[in-house]
Amino acid sequence: MADETYEVSEIVDELLTKKRGIKEIIKEMKNVSELMVDLAYSAILFNNNDLAEEVKGLEEEMNKLRLQIEISAMLAARTSEDASKLSGIIRVAAAAESISNAAERIADTVLRDIELHPVLKEALEEAEETVERIIVTAKSGIDGMAIKDIRDNEKYAVDILCIKRGGKWIFDPKWDVKLKTEDMVIVTGFKENVEQFKDLVK
Amino acid sequence: MADETYEVSEIVDELLTKKRGIKEIIKEMKNVSELMVDLAYSAILFNNNDLAEEVKGLEEEMNKLRLQIEISAMLAARTSEDASKLSGIIRVAAAAESISNAAERIADTVLRDIELHPVLKEALEEAEETVERIIVTAKSGIDGMAIKDIRDNEKYAVDILCIKRGGKWIFDPKWDVKLKTEDMVIVTGFKENVEQFKDLVK
Repeated sequence: MADETYEVSEIVDELLTKKRGIKEIIKEMKNVSELMVDLAYSAILFNNNDLAEEVKGLEEEMNKLRLQIEISAMLAARTSEDASKLSGIIRVAAAAESISNAAERIADTVLRDIELHPVLKEALEEAEETVERIIVTAKSGIDGMAIKDIRDNEKYAVDILCIKRGGKWIFDPKWDVKLKTEDMVIVTGFKENVEQFKDLVK
Repeated sequence: MADETYEVSEIVDELLTKKRGIKEIIKEMKNVSELMVDLAYSAILFNNNDLAEEVKGLEEEMNKLRLQIEISAMLAARTSEDASKLSGIIRVAAAAESISNAAERIADTVLRDIELHPVLKEALEEAEETVERIIVTAKSGIDGMAIKDIRDNEKYAVDILCIKRGGKWIFDPKWDVKLKTEDMVIVTGFKENVEQFKDLVK
């Protein structure tokens, strides 16, 4: 109980210092929940523990975001009319977190080393789009490149979903963001393009 | 209770007559669950009851698909090793259905006419991609066109997520599928492209 109170006050601190509005948090919850579903299915497809671990980490982030939404909504409500309109936001945040919980359960089958039936892998393999996790190295040729240049490159034509830099996530990175050595990048696109991109940056 | 037994036997009949394998069903569950999340957020964004109703309809379809997976897995398992590998499929199906439940809860805020805070709409509006629902008419100019031609058209550049034709859904339609009058089509793409497409087919 003492622990929980401490956690909440930490989250309130973060809310106040970052000065993020409800809008930014709900946008992040939508992005993160959709990303988690992609990553979770990919974790099964590639039987990849790293991707599954990322999903687990994001699920913790989602718990925090949901609590921030609830606290922000309560602090923002001045009248009963306000409160009633804000209740929709609390519900959407709760649903977004349910999506992330389900994604975590999918990822969990990978982390628990449950041996999966080959049919499951086949079903996911036949999906048109795929997701991959790439680490930027000095030799990769994309170190220092802007997101825009990667997206517009004829050879790649992949989309950067997000970047993990020094333990922090950058979701939906702006087009002028430049990749740095040691960034972990989640790319998505048609299977052929993603494979090509992986080969090029190796 | 009698009703429930009847429903299960109906689903088994469907399984046997359609002769769909576990792979096809799990692929469909993945596609439908991801589509439902898109549609649910779009239903809020456009305050669109039709989209919300589609989400509700798809949720019922997901319940059926999950039951079909469970039944198929049980019928397919001959040894305890089989059964253990198939349990992963049952878990993934359960998680996919949880995702669809969450999407339904999001859509439900629209159907219940809960007045939403403008901030929620703003957050969703700022997303890069959007989803729209279009009815094909004889005058729309896309009646009889193949999916491929729409996707490759310079003016449109939108993606057809699925088609509802005579009460049945076609998910991830093949490139040679031709649109027909009265088809309901769910398109996705960058906001400007989808808007342009909507204007053109009106």
